Formats: sequence, C-alpha cells, structure tokens
Amino acid sequence: MLRTHTCGELNISNLGQTVTLCGWVQKSRDLGGTTFIDVRDRYGLTQILVNTDSSADIREQARNLGREFVIKVTGTVLERTSKNLKIPTGEIEISVSEIEILNGSKIPPFMIEDETDGGEELRAKYRYLDLRRNPIRNNLVMRHKLAQEVRRYLSDLDFIEVETPVLIKSTPEGARDFVVPSRMNPGEFYALPQSPQTFKQLLMVSGFDRYFQIVKCFRDEDLRADRQPEFTQIDCEMSFITQEDILNVFEGMTRHLFNHVKGITLESFPRMEYADAMRLYGSDKPDLRFGMEFVEMNDLVKGKNFGVFDNAELVVAINAKGCAEYTRKQIDELTEWLKRPQIGATGLIYARHNADGTIKSSVDKFYDEAALAEWSKALNTEPGDMILVLAGAKDKVRKQMNELRLEIGGRLGLRDKNKFAPLWVVDFPLLEWDEETERYHAMHHPFTSPKPEDIALLDSNPGAVRANAYDLVINGTEIGGGSIRIHDKKLQSLMFKHLGFSPEEAQKQFGFLMDAFEFGAPPHGGIAFGFDRLSSIFAGLDSIRDVIAFPKNNSGRDVMIDSPSTIAEAQMNELKIKTTA
Amino acid sequence: MLRTHTCGELNISNLGQTVTLCGWVQKSRDLGGTTFIDVRDRYGLTQILVNTDSSADIREQARNLGREFVIKVTGTVLERTSKNLKIPTGEIEISVSEIEILNGSKIPPFMIEDETDGGEELRAKYRYLDLRRNPIRNNLVMRHKLAQEVRRYLSDLDFIEVETPVLIKSTPEGARDFVVPSRMNPGEFYALPQSPQTFKQLLMVSGFDRYFQIVKCFRDEDLRADRQPEFTQIDCEMSFITQEDILNVFEGMTRHLFNHVKGITLESFPRMEYADAMRLYGSDKPDLRFGMEFVEMNDLVKGKNFGVFDNAELVVAINAKGCAEYTRKQIDELTEWLKRPQIGATGLIYARHNADGTIKSSVDKFYDEAALAEWSKALNTEPGDMILVLAGAKDKVRKQMNELRLEIGGRLGLRDKNKFAPLWVVDFPLLEWDEETERYHAMHHPFTSPKPEDIALLDSNPGAVRANAYDLVINGTEIGGGSIRIHDKKLQSLMFKHLGFSPEEAQKQFGFLMDAFEFGAPPHGGIAFGFDRLSSIFAGLDSIRDVIAFPKNNSGRDVMIDSPSTIAEAQMNELKIKTTA
Repeated sequence: MLRTHTCGELNISNLGQTVTLCGWVQKSRDLGGTTFIDVRDRYGLTQILVNTDSSADIREQARNLGREFVIKVTGTVLERTSKNLKIPTGEIEISVSEIEILNGSKIPPFMIEDETDGGEELRAKYRYLDLRRNPIRNNLVMRHKLAQEVRRYLSDLDFIEVETPVLIKSTPEGARDFVVPSRMNPGEFYALPQSPQTFKQLLMVSGFDRYFQIVKCFRDEDLRADRQPEFTQIDCEMSFITQEDILNVFEGMTRHLFNHVKGITLESFPRMEYADAMRLYGSDKPDLRFGMEFVEMNDLVKGKNFGVFDNAELVVAINAKGCAEYTRKQIDELTEWLKRPQIGATGLIYARHNADGTIKSSVDKFYDEAALAEWSKALNTEPGDMILVLAGAKDKVRKQMNELRLEIGGRLGLRDKNKFAPLWVVDFPLLEWDEETERYHAMHHPFTSPKPEDIALLDSNPGAVRANAYDLVINGTEIGGGSIRIHDKKLQSLMFKHLGFSPEEAQKQFGFLMDAFEFGAPPHGGIAFGFDRLSSIFAGLDSIRDVIAFPKNNSGRDVMIDSPSTIAEAQMNELKIKTTA
Repeated sequence: MLRTHTCGELNISNLGQTVTLCGWVQKSRDLGGTTFIDVRDRYGLTQILVNTDSSADIREQARNLGREFVIKVTGTVLERTSKNLKIPTGEIEISVSEIEILNGSKIPPFMIEDETDGGEELRAKYRYLDLRRNPIRNNLVMRHKLAQEVRRYLSDLDFIEVETPVLIKSTPEGARDFVVPSRMNPGEFYALPQSPQTFKQLLMVSGFDRYFQIVKCFRDEDLRADRQPEFTQIDCEMSFITQEDILNVFEGMTRHLFNHVKGITLESFPRMEYADAMRLYGSDKPDLRFGMEFVEMNDLVKGKNFGVFDNAELVVAINAKGCAEYTRKQIDELTEWLKRPQIGATGLIYARHNADGTIKSSVDKFYDEAALAEWSKALNTEPGDMILVLAGAKDKVRKQMNELRLEIGGRLGLRDKNKFAPLWVVDFPLLEWDEETERYHAMHHPFTSPKPEDIALLDSNPGAVRANAYDLVINGTEIGGGSIRIHDKKLQSLMFKHLGFSPEEAQKQFGFLMDAFEFGAPPHGGIAFGFDRLSSIFAGLDSIRDVIAFPKNNSGRDVMIDSPSTIAEAQMNELKIKTTA
C-alpha cells in the first residue's frame, strides 16, 4: 500500500507516529508562514500542517497544491492546538516531512462538497466527480450493506442465490422488452429479462426449495421521473409454503435490514386488504406514517338538494387536523392544485371547525348546523380542524382524495423521512380491466394464483376474483410484491385463456413452463423487492437516482459515456440488421 | 410451511415424533404387503413405510405413486430394522398416517439420479429436470457458497460492491459486443459490457478506494467448447496500491475460498515470470500439479548433422517418467496425435532410458551413447524413463510441447482433480502482434500500464515492453487476470496511439475516461476472476456448463426456452430496425 493509514483513522492514540496518507486535497489554507491542507479519502479527512519547521521545498509544494490534487504525505502525528471535535480525526494533524503529488487536477466544474453548486446536468456529465461527494458515496456504501445483509439473512434461512440468464426470450405480455440481435442465429433476437419470473419458478420445479437473487432487470418504458431502464430486484421464491410463510420470512428480512443497517427496531407489520386500502386511503400503497383516513359521507350528505353530492357516486372526506386557519387564498390554491389535469378534481368543499366550536362550510346553503355537527362527529374533528370533501365517480375521487391526503400530510409535516411505516397489502384483484385494449390484464402477472374460492367467478365476474397476491409498502411506496403461483398446467392454461392468449400463443410463449408443470411442480410462491427503491427509502431520498452509481437520464441516456450511440455499418451487417431511423 | 421437517434432517433423535414431509417420489418398492417410498427434496432422502398397519386407502394411494410425483406425507418416525448408514436419515423411516398428492408427474424423459441415462440434448431441453439431480444441484449450492465467501472476505477488507450499468456503449476494441437498439434514441444502440473495466476505473477516480462486483458480462464470440455468451466475473479494483498488494489481497481471497468452501489449506502461491512460464512449460498458464519442465536442447544437439535439429530454432524435450515401456505402436499413436492440425507438430523424436541402463533413441544414427548420456543428464532420467523431443520454430514448438506435456501428465495420472496447484504468472508483455490485422494489440486491455523502465521501448521494440499485468492460474486454467492501470492522460493517449487509435477515435470511445484522469485520478489496479471457471475447478469439472443453472449451447441457444427467437414486426418497427437475414 502507498499509505500506512487512511484519512479517517488517526486520533490521539497515534501521537508521535510517523504515518503516510494518500488522498485528495479538499482545501488548502495559506496563513502566511503556515499552510493547512485537508486531505480527503473515502474514510475521512485529515489535517496536514506545513509551517516554518518544514523545508522550503515542502512549503513551496504545499502552496501549489490545487483542489482535488491527489497527494501522498508522510509526517508525524501531532496534537492540534485548535481541535475540531466534529470529526474523528479532529484532535490531530500531520506535521509533514514529505509530499508527493500522485496526480494533478484541473479545477472541478462544481464544488466537491456535501452541498454542491453543480446543476443536475453538469453533475451527470461528471458523475465520477459527483460520486466523490460524501452524501452520494454514503448512499452507495449503505446500499452495499443492505445487499450484504439481504444475502446473510436469506442464506442463513437456506436460501441459495442462483444466477438466471440475462439473454432470454421476448414475451409480449407486460412492458416492452429490450431486445438483442443474435449474430449466430440471424433474424432472431434475445430479450433482456423484465424479471427472472419463469426461471425462478423452474428452479422450484427443480427442487431448489428456496431461491433468491439480487439481479438486474430491464424495461423499455417511457421513463417517468423516477424510473430507470435497468433496475435491480431482490428476487425470491420458496416451495411448500403458504402465503403466511412468505409474509413472515420477508417481514423478517425487512426488519433485519432496518435493525442491522439503520439500527431501527420495527414492530410487526400491519396487514390490510386491498379493498380496505382503497376505501380508507384511495391507494393500494397507503402512507401509514399518519392517519387521516377517508370517511365516506354518502349516507350523511345525500338528499339535501346539493346536486354535486346527490349526483356523485362517492362523497368522501378527510379531517385536516389543525387546518381551520387556512385562508381563503390558501384554499383557492389548494382547489386549483386539485383541478390540475394530473389530479382532475372538479372542486373542493370544506368545513372549518372554528376555535369557538362553530362549524362553517362552503356549502352552508345545503347543510345546516345540525348536519355539519354530524360531519364533525363522523370525522372526529376538534376545534381548529378542517374537513375537506371531494365528490365524484368512486375510483376517480378516491385517487384524488389520496393525492389530497398526501399533500395535506406533507404540509402538516406528517411524512417524516426518519419514521418508517410498513404495511402488507393483501388480497389484490387477480385481473384488472384495461380501457385501451378492452380486455383484462393480469394485475401482477399471468402466473399469480387466484384464491380457490374465487375461481368460479372467473367466468361470471372476472374483476371480482381475488389473487393470492401481496405487496409490501413502506411510507406510501411499494417496495415489494409477490404472489403464490399457479403450479398446475390446467389452471395456468385457464389463466392464459382469460388473458386473451390462444392455446397456440400460450404454448409458444410459455410452453416450457407449462410442460415443466407436468413433471412434478411443487406448490410455490415468492416476492420481489425493488432494491433501488428500498435503498432510496433507507437513504431518505425521494429519487432512486442517487442510490445508483451510474444512472441514466429520462431519455435513457448516460450522458457521461454518451450512450446509446451509433454503431458501425459493419457491426450491423454482421448482425444482419438495419436501422430505419 | 406445508412440512414440519425437510427430507434430510430426521434421525434417531426424532423417534416417535409425528412429522410432515414434502418432496418428490424418488423410488417406490412394492413388496406385496409393504411399500417403501423414498421421498426426496433438496436436503436429502427419507424412507416412507406403508404396510398392513396402514389403512386400505393409503395402501392404494401408495401403490399408485409414480416417479417424481410431489407428495406430502404425515406419519411417525420409527427406527428402521434394516439401516442404511450411508445417508443421515438412514436409521429411520416414517410410518404413514396420511398421504396427499400435491402434484402428479409424467414419466421423466431420463432418470433423475446421480448417474443419468439422459443424453446432452435431452437434458438441456428438460434442464429443470436435470437440475433435480444431486451432482448438479450440489454444484450450484457450492457456487452460492463461493459467492457468499467472496463477498464476506472482500467486505471485511472494506471493499464495497457497486453495481455498474449493463446498458453501456459499444467499443470496437476487443471481442464483439452484443448490442441493444434504443427505442427512445432511434438509430442508436446500447452495448452489453464485456467487463465493467472503465466503470470500475471511474469508481477509483471517484475515491471509492476498494470496489468489487460479482457481475454478468457478455461477449458475442463464436463459442468454443466451453465458452458462454454470458458469463460471470468477480470484478475488483483498488486504489493507492502496488502490484504486490493486489497479489496479496487476492491470493488471500483464493486461500480463504479453498479453506472455507473446500476445507483445503493452500501454501502461499508461487510466482513465475511470463517468460519463464513460456520457456519451462510453453504456456502462460502452466499446470503445476506436476513437474515435467521443458529442457532446451539446442546446445546439446546441434552440429551433429541431424538436419531436423540443426534447422530448428528450438529443440526442446521433456522427461516422461516411467514411459520407457511405451510400445512402438503407442509411440506412433502419440506421433499421429501430435501431427493433427490442432497441434501441428512435424514429428516426435524419443529416447528410451531402458531398465538395463542403456539409452536407445529414434535418432541413434546421429547421437551416440555419449551424446544420449548427456541428454539423460540434462533431463535427469532414470532407467524406465522416456525422453520426448520436439523441434521447430520457438513459439510453435513450445505450444506443441505444452500439449504433449499435458497429455503425458494426464496419462500418468498427474492431473488429479483433488489436488490444487495455484500460480501467479507475472510480467506479461504489454502488446502482442496480430498477424491478421498486422498491428499490435493490447495483450490484456488498453488500460494496462507498461513497466516504467520499459516505456522507452514502446517506439523501438514494442513487443518487448512488459506490463504490470498478472494472471492467477490454478491447475493449468487461468482463473483471474489483472493489471496496474494507467492513471495519467498522457500515458493513456500514448497507449492508444500505439494501438492504432487516432486521437479522434480515442476521444470518441474513451474520452470520458481520459477526461476523468485530468481531475485527480489515483494510482489504481485490479483483477477479475472468471467465476464460472473458478466454480468448475471447485466442483472438479472440466466444463463450466454444470456450474451454470441455465447455460446456452454452442450456438448460443437456450433450447429449453427456445431462445433466441423471432420477434414481431411491430416490435421491430417501434425500435426502428429491420432484419436483413
């Protein structure tokens, strides 16, 4: 090693030792006769002292060190006169006997500090410099710890990690595949996996019993704010289990991670049926860091000649605690916010529970004091609270109210990044109607098993069939989802039929899996966690971008390496493809 | 869980307990009144007993169980009358009170046993059944342990695992890339990484200090017997180190793996310069499980009017211990084997050191007793040994002699799969001449640093420049290779120039890396291990195929899922590509 110690480990116990450190010049302060240099590496920061005791050569060298120069310094550990107790090395400094410049540096395009002055584009282009900043490096160190703990927890439970192939077969179901032309098989293509779903099921058929893999997956989707074309899953599968076993094992894993990576002990996770989640929170991933449950008001408000309510399929309200002081202007702003096309509400009705105990609503014309008292009772308001009401078609108004609840929760400071509210959502519908294609799609994927007692409904009322499917939600974000799978060829064929596959299509796409089911497939099920998302929650970030070392932008570009890019004509000829762009 | 125990854990301490097991019917023997069923899962095999104590229903069910049926049995643990001490569960059996068939099975196309009757193609098509066989499953369990131990060892040394992108940029240097058309950037392509080389170097520039990743890599090569288009590397990089540090850390890792996964303690690894490896073994990856070093004979044999030797650049011999008894026929066969185009020798000369002490050669006409005594001395032969001599152009004859040495070593049983002979080969040449393109190529890759004392030779004698490059070889197989990298823009530009890049090409392909070198790149270096190959050595296999769950065949096909395959016209239109096949 070029160094004897890192920049993060020397302290008062090393006084008098001769040491050699390597690192980057964070800062250099020239105070006339004395120069202080902060040298930084991954492990910390150490102060270097060059003063009149140093040779003229060294003093000259020290004066010429620029920011981000890479240096190697040898010297003696001294006690500082002015200590900095905020950092572990803050009680000592190194009195230098030798400085070597290992590499120079141009002036970086932005400050390499916890709070940088670099814009997003500049930081993306110079990602290798952005990664030098402590917050981002710390995220990636934390991500490494998470992965290590996942592997430790699962290995201790007899799970084995098996690598499944990356070059697989394109399947039209689900999102768009990335494809890879095969040179050796002209005219044919591999696809990159959207998940190792079929392979992990085959591993269960093979008797692997307990499988996991931390694995890259790929989806060629139009990228919304926080999606990446390549992302990482913790992919898991077990045999001879019930849904209860899966929930227990992976609740255990999640608690293990919080305990060992963040030092947080979580209580056992509550469970909620999908139908209740939609009714109480208007979302299949409710943020349970705060209450503010929906209260359905149909029984209370209908029949009072207020057309908006009378004509609505659903009238639903929340209690915005302590918001009675909202000004007219604030309420107008909130109303405008709700009316934006992204949310699409038609209006907002409110009732203030004033400090003096009176209740005033925006619909006083239709609801008298007694009626509003009933509202207050239903919503359990106290003086100072505000009732916010939306009305409309059930599914739409629930989604709108979900947005409003989250917004108010945020404004009230109820969405604390250091608080963690996990939740299992269970009993998802098996199928979901797609307006565009006018047919049912699998809500999870075509391998999810229906609840046995609901199978009869597949023909009569497909939308009402519940699946053995579950999601793990933390703080309003889905971090994992899975199901008990079908392990029977007949039932799998029936599912494909209901999803609009002809028997030939089903055989062509998934024949290998259905064939496998005929050779002794065990009952099995599993779950997959979004590892990027999980890491971002652990890091307290809204975006996954800074828990990924080299993310792509919203056009799927890596602006640092300038990819994707054109390729040579000869390369395309070898692959027997042409671009028509 | 559907079971209370696995099929591998019950023993005499469980007598009398009521247990439930799940697994596959390995075998069923109906002995009239009594039926024995062997139930198998990943953990072992347990014997189930159905006899006249069982209900008629159960006896009927038991008789109808086919091979590979998946069953759940409940019963009582009894001591066996006839014990099988070869398996952990061999002292007990389960007297059944309940059998449930969880799934049936068609008759498998080959025997699910340690030695199967299935041919390679059939086993590939039904890979999920082949994976049920113990030897293959054990390989994958071992591979999992290896990966866990790699991660544990490196994490304990402050390495962090960072995921680098899979969708990157195509570079013409090196092997062929697999490419991925970008829908969002029409006419442009991503490439799949042949290794994360440039990204790990950027992580060093970012100050990550110690990085590793167990990662899939991709090469679109014509597949020789034992290559896969996708393969797995243990990819590692360190900053502020010398070559010595890398060798020590990764020798440590390899010894850790042997110790923790195979229970074998290895001595410290010998090191050999590339030039010596070529001279003594004719290979940069010598198999050191046995000696049989080359002896160069030019000084001994030239000038005796034997044209074959006089005209040869190199005459080289080995001592085939104890092979003096080879018959004329055996020697003829060996000669034919050497003359095959794959090896290309022109002939074989030999000298027997007979039991009576005399030495008889195939070239007695030119070499008298005294001359042959000198051969014997040079090769340190004893009565019973055979000297085998090849002559020709130096590089070619060394390669031929390498093949002959390995063949004789194999015949003599010196290549024992349970013996492990590791070796560091160091001081590789930086460049290697390519006959086809008539220019120098980087022997490792363009980022490898030359030895500082050899840089001056880059212009005058490029082939003589040595690199700071090293390979780890075990039993004649390269399992890892790496180098100290260039971390200076000027030197990197010089390398690209010598590799035939114009400054514009270098900038277009690797500008991001050279730019990064200008912002404080630390000295760094690393290594990458072939994880499939390492696993196969640990498993004692010649092929990597059975340490990979779902391998592809020599045409790059997965015959189980039938991939690659054609894709829909619409899919190609969206991607703005056409096939010209």
